[in-house]
Amino acid sequence: MKLLEDRILRDGKLGEGNVLKVDSFVNHQIDVPFLSELGREFYRLFKDEGITKILTIEASGIGIACLTAAHFGVPVVFAKKTHTNNIFADVYTSSVYSYTHQKTYEIVVSKQFLSPEDRVLIIDDFLAKGSALLALLSLLRDAGAQVAGAGIVIEKDYQDGGKLVRDMGIRVESLARIESMTAEEGIRFCR
Amino acid sequence: MKLLEDRILRDGKLGEGNVLKVDSFVNHQIDVPFLSELGREFYRLFKDEGITKILTIEASGIGIACLTAAHFGVPVVFAKKTHTNNIFADVYTSSVYSYTHQKTYEIVVSKQFLSPEDRVLIIDDFLAKGSALLALLSLLRDAGAQVAGAGIVIEKDYQDGGKLVRDMGIRVESLARIESMTAEEGIRFCR
Repeated sequence: MKLLEDRILRDGKLGEGNVLKVDSFVNHQIDVPFLSELGREFYRLFKDEGITKILTIEASGIGIACLTAAHFGVPVVFAKKTHTNNIFADVYTSSVYSYTHQKTYEIVVSKQFLSPEDRVLIIDDFLAKGSALLALLSLLRDAGAQVAGAGIVIEKDYQDGGKLVRDMGIRVESLARIESMTAEEGIRFCR
Repeated sequence: MKLLEDRILRDGKLGEGNVLKVDSFVNHQIDVPFLSELGREFYRLFKDEGITKILTIEASGIGIACLTAAHFGVPVVFAKKTHTNNIFADVYTSSVYSYTHQKTYEIVVSKQFLSPEDRVLIIDDFLAKGSALLALLSLLRDAGAQVAGAGIVIEKDYQDGGKLVRDMGIRVESLARIESMTAEEGIRFCR
């Protein structure tokens, strides 16, 4: 999506450890009218899929998930992060390894908000090695919910998360796919 | 706001310790079309205030903040919670005491996203003793930003946060104000 690629080139910053920072418009300050346009694009891509619910993960997924859900007219459920082992009867739980923070945390969703009747679109801001996306898919499998696919704002195509999930037969639509990213050559998108 | 009061009476649950749970439509599952209507009401209340930015706090404030900002056409900045002491030069920081979790945490906002040119509306899901709201006001004061007021989804009027902040001369608009809440008598709203 050219609108997003142009914005990443203009406002994205390459930080230490080759991290792409988009916190001026995606995940600290949220450019709401802009993200609503991205949500409209997710709606265009998935509108015929009979989506009943959008699933994301706190905190940075919530903005884009809500602004996408507004186009679909469906609720958002966000998985909560917890540092304790929540093996309660009333929640689905899964583990995420964060490469950024180099630690594992649990995510939980209350069982009352996911069911086999739900046809779910996962929305998240980033896809790299796929740890968060795989954890969300695991929650949906435990709930017996139907997976319509995943809509990702920025995918790092040079990491293996996207391939892993697509090889499972799951539709993944990323609005910007980064082929490579270096301080010397800048950001290149997949063509 | 009758729409919200009716929804609280229908779907709110009184949990242990007299906690009001609205996680089926506000802060775990988010009823996006419904919260967008609440956002429209905040817009009606504050539309003449020249709002340039909406400030909230992760995670449960992000949904209602984004769905409100969509009516204003302005960005959202969300304060991030951190368990470390972030006394860095590039962030504003403040402390919040969580009565729910009985601990203090720090919140931070990058300095680049709040400035004296900003006229800010604070949006949050709950106001009780006011700890989070006072911390957000402290960030805005440090940034020299103008405070247009605060829009709250549910205020517990029997706790003193709202009075404290209104006594500071700050406009606080709560869409539902709970006068009392007990297992025996249920939920009563201020009239």
